Amino acid sequence: MKEMKETLETLKARLAKVMDLNAAAAVLEWDQETHMPAGAAGVRALQISTIRKLAHEHLTADEIGALLDRLDPAVSDLDPASTEAALVRVTRRDYERARKLPGRLVAALAEASAHAREAWKTARETDSFATFAPHLERLVELNVEKAETLGYEEHLYDPLLDEFEPGMKTADVERVFEGLRAELVPLVHAIAERPAPDETVLHRRFDPQKQWDFGLAVIRDFGFDFERGRQDHSAHPFTTAFSVFDVRLTTRVDEHFFNPAFFGTLHEAGHGLYEQGIDPALDRTPLASGTSLGMHESQSRLWENLVGRSRPFWTYYYPHLQKTFPESLSDVEGETFFRAVNKVAPSLIRVEADEVTYNLHIMLRFELEKAMLEGRLAVADVPEAWNEKMEAYLGLRPSSDAEGALQDIHWSLGAFGYFPTYALGNLMSAQLFNQAKQDLVGLDDQIAGGTFEALLRWLRVRVHRHGRKKTATEILVDTTGAGLRADPWLAYVREKFGALYGL
Amino acid sequence: MKEMKETLETLKARLAKVMDLNAAAAVLEWDQETHMPAGAAGVRALQISTIRKLAHEHLTADEIGALLDRLDPAVSDLDPASTEAALVRVTRRDYERARKLPGRLVAALAEASAHAREAWKTARETDSFATFAPHLERLVELNVEKAETLGYEEHLYDPLLDEFEPGMKTADVERVFEGLRAELVPLVHAIAERPAPDETVLHRRFDPQKQWDFGLAVIRDFGFDFERGRQDHSAHPFTTAFSVFDVRLTTRVDEHFFNPAFFGTLHEAGHGLYEQGIDPALDRTPLASGTSLGMHESQSRLWENLVGRSRPFWTYYYPHLQKTFPESLSDVEGETFFRAVNKVAPSLIRVEADEVTYNLHIMLRFELEKAMLEGRLAVADVPEAWNEKMEAYLGLRPSSDAEGALQDIHWSLGAFGYFPTYALGNLMSAQLFNQAKQDLVGLDDQIAGGTFEALLRWLRVRVHRHGRKKTATEILVDTTGAGLRADPWLAYVREKFGALYGL
Repeated sequence: MKEMKETLETLKARLAKVMDLNAAAAVLEWDQETHMPAGAAGVRALQISTIRKLAHEHLTADEIGALLDRLDPAVSDLDPASTEAALVRVTRRDYERARKLPGRLVAALAEASAHAREAWKTARETDSFATFAPHLERLVELNVEKAETLGYEEHLYDPLLDEFEPGMKTADVERVFEGLRAELVPLVHAIAERPAPDETVLHRRFDPQKQWDFGLAVIRDFGFDFERGRQDHSAHPFTTAFSVFDVRLTTRVDEHFFNPAFFGTLHEAGHGLYEQGIDPALDRTPLASGTSLGMHESQSRLWENLVGRSRPFWTYYYPHLQKTFPESLSDVEGETFFRAVNKVAPSLIRVEADEVTYNLHIMLRFELEKAMLEGRLAVADVPEAWNEKMEAYLGLRPSSDAEGALQDIHWSLGAFGYFPTYALGNLMSAQLFNQAKQDLVGLDDQIAGGTFEALLRWLRVRVHRHGRKKTATEILVDTTGAGLRADPWLAYVREKFGALYGL
Repeated sequence: MKEMKETLETLKARLAKVMDLNAAAAVLEWDQETHMPAGAAGVRALQISTIRKLAHEHLTADEIGALLDRLDPAVSDLDPASTEAALVRVTRRDYERARKLPGRLVAALAEASAHAREAWKTARETDSFATFAPHLERLVELNVEKAETLGYEEHLYDPLLDEFEPGMKTADVERVFEGLRAELVPLVHAIAERPAPDETVLHRRFDPQKQWDFGLAVIRDFGFDFERGRQDHSAHPFTTAFSVFDVRLTTRVDEHFFNPAFFGTLHEAGHGLYEQGIDPALDRTPLASGTSLGMHESQSRLWENLVGRSRPFWTYYYPHLQKTFPESLSDVEGETFFRAVNKVAPSLIRVEADEVTYNLHIMLRFELEKAMLEGRLAVADVPEAWNEKMEAYLGLRPSSDAEGALQDIHWSLGAFGYFPTYALGNLMSAQLFNQAKQDLVGLDDQIAGGTFEALLRWLRVRVHRHGRKKTATEILVDTTGAGLRADPWLAYVREKFGALYGL
């Protein structure tokens, strides 16, 4: 017992080093997007690469394997829910994944994606898929190799998905998405036939500083802790955590469009609240981060949409907003504003998609990337397949590949298996929020009173504090009695948007 | 030859890793002082410590020694001024110093100074030297051990000074300081007897944002490159460089005192121009930084004082300043303002000292720390020795140790040998500027026209571009024909302040 404790401490000291290196790299990346002068781009890339490589070397050191080998039998006697057992389990997972991938493959992926990213930029600017195609082919090839190297039982896509959504299987996602698609496509078509709400009010002038301050005030109400976090400007909003004690949000402000800064701030704060909610005792261990991208996205979408686009939320905040922007909003009814921020309309671009249509954009990508990896779809045929699916799901056909298969950066980064987590997050957000509503009496009234304490506490206990000690599925099962399900989300959109669109 | 080239490339690749680690630590430290939320203080200290330790491990690896051993004979055939020879020479120096200090001693110093810093804070707040004394004793003891470990030929103080001012000897500093003191003390006493200029205009209200912008406009005129640098707020101004391509300044703004932000900005920009001026080919090598603290300080003081407090400077900028702050300055004559920013008066606190009296504060510290290290002065007797010297040099006697021997943080950080570099910097700044005036026809007129191009180019060629390829003394000799001298600085203050004070 005493020996196990010592071995565990040795392991933790080694892992703390890995965590510190990764935190340092994350600080460098954060600085790169927020404050760094443009001329430093070249050298910063080298610095980040050095630090990430060192973190990788320290994680994959033989000594870590030896420590894990000694700890495996020892922790098998422990409660699997214990921090000790979880630490060994999660470290083993990270270690094996990292050791399995040969340096040659990692380097080839990094190199291919560096080239692909440049080619993708040109391709998108010139609307020339052919420019990007050979790079995409190479990345598909390398991702197939990656999947084969990591190994799988059922599906080639499994080990890729598993990187972002540990424990989730392709078959699970397919089953859930299938049920979702069957219900969602007709719903979206029905909404598209109804008159769209007027959203021009959102495009009036909103003073940037006031937008900034209003967003901060709301996430302070949510419970975001500015003693352990802050928000900065960046071209593309993101959240990064250097520790449970240091969580950074970014957002961007459009003077003539209310949505990006406000809902971006709420979204990133959702990610940030998750990281801030992790048990501080897990800090500087591999357990101290969100358990999966899907679960992370569930937290951002919950605060952005389930809370931040809800009627009770705007009942409370709209009068404050009107006072903040009297020139732009004094003549706008609360109901008009509420309908504007909940506008649903099929559109071509994923990042601009509304809450209802968004999942269809994701399903399309999931299906195409699986087909490419399995060799069922040639890269050259991707644009046509994309456009056909767009028409089937959303009733729209892109007039160019820039608006179609070239719109996202992700594939050029070599990231396959990442897209589905966006939709998984949406589904999880409703599944969890639905449960929170049952557990917390009068939650709507609390939100309508600008009070989020009980909700945040519930999320902390059910989701946040565990970090990576539980998988997303374990959290869902323990909290809602079932694994991932689409029906709470479907019920939510049917009820909310059925009412809004008079269906 | 080919083999040497390869060995050199191997060394450079290893050193680049060390540089990247140190750059990462510097980014973490910069963030800590500028943006980091308060709650992250504890974990950030651990992260920085991990990264610095790794940098140390990589620098002191046996492989570095082996590479140097192979390169030493090879570069002995090369021009010592070549980059290759300099790289091997400077790396050898860093490597030997780092290897000589046992981990035990480094850790003991770190631990003692962590405790000392806390004790110093309390001691200063409660004006109780006795609280700090045992910690100072311990740090003196450890610094003696450090000096003995590093070794020396003449003076125990040599290896400590050498850390900050490579190649400079205690005897050199003593000789220069002696000449300086003999002239300076009577000059300061003479000035103290003249009526002091009115500096109340500097304490009017100056809008913080306008102060910020005005300072930035001036350093842009100096030639500070904002594509390769930026300025942020911090409680204590500093400059840090993560690369030749990424130089960060900080400053602080006092709404009711013009000096801190403005002269602080000029001062830090002087440091920043040095780092930005280093030959980019040296980036990510140990040669890519200022060659010594004294030479660094010479650059900050040159721009702050020799340029920024000069008559030609204010001839050009005062009308702009008046336009920027009409409410505070429209009734103030240029001459009144010029005299105010050049006020000389003996004072107790070093960091608030003017350009003339500053060096006396430094000499006092230099003499006391030498005496402590040599065992000629017991720590318990420091306050009395301090007060006596203050009276002899500046004609003032502190009424408390908080205003006396407890005012500086430096000793509590374990830094002995650091103080003299401030005065060396002042002397070097005048020695270099004096030469620049001789080399550059009409320099005063250029400054009076807001033009600094020729001066900056001169500094780049003579000082900046070399990085650590030349020592401070080599730069002085090559540029002015002589090593460190006090008389250019004395001539400068005699002329300028003699005129201002009618001596």
